[in-house]
Amino acid sequence: MQSVNLAEKFALFDDHWSPHIVGALNGQYVKLAKFKGEFIWHNHADEDELFLVIKGTLRIALKDQFIILNAGEFYIVPKGVEHKLIVDEEVHVLLLEPQVTAQTGSLESNLLVDVQPWI
Amino acid sequence: MQSVNLAEKFALFDDHWSPHIVGALNGQYVKLAKFKGEFIWHNHADEDELFLVIKGTLRIALKDQFIILNAGEFYIVPKGVEHKLIVDEEVHVLLLEPQVTAQTGSLESNLLVDVQPWI
Repeated sequence: MQSVNLAEKFALFDDHWSPHIVGALNGQYVKLAKFKGEFIWHNHADEDELFLVIKGTLRIALKDQFIILNAGEFYIVPKGVEHKLIVDEEVHVLLLEPQVTAQTGSLESNLLVDVQPWI
Repeated sequence: MQSVNLAEKFALFDDHWSPHIVGALNGQYVKLAKFKGEFIWHNHADEDELFLVIKGTLRIALKDQFIILNAGEFYIVPKGVEHKLIVDEEVHVLLLEPQVTAQTGSLESNLLVDVQPWI
């Protein structure tokens, strides 16, 4: 593989809520995504999910608290925990999650992106 | 868990070649480390290892090439691949690897840190 420059990869796409795969290791994918607006409440029964903010601010609503992440901060949503992403201004995020993770967990949604391409 | 601010965590330690655990997900650890100087040649038979540079420059020597990573760049060393880290000026790195990974792979070394503490 080649080294990956995050800024160069983020420059390759503009779509929101479509994580793009930039790396794979040990059964996990490293993905980059741009978020803006709100995503639906969901959880992943068997998978922890890491959100590392590269640029901007990400709010993660949990049932009992808000997590606010700025650039250089990460949070791991444990498996089974309901969460919802809320984003006022576009945020650039590095995600880490198992290769089997569906974006909306067990929910069916038109927000679900079936094919998550490599960039 | 709480959110993790990378800069705050890096300010908590000064030692080189001692990754500190800052997160765990899906059988992987997220670790932060400061490197300066050279580490020994080694490989991890069954584990891929990700290096994301947060500050500074990291050179990863492979048998047939050098990988040079600046801030905002990552590289995944595939399992079984011999590698050696070479660092002129102190570099801050985020590591991702399985929870079972020993720092020097199958080699015994006085560089090996048996207990990798959480910070």
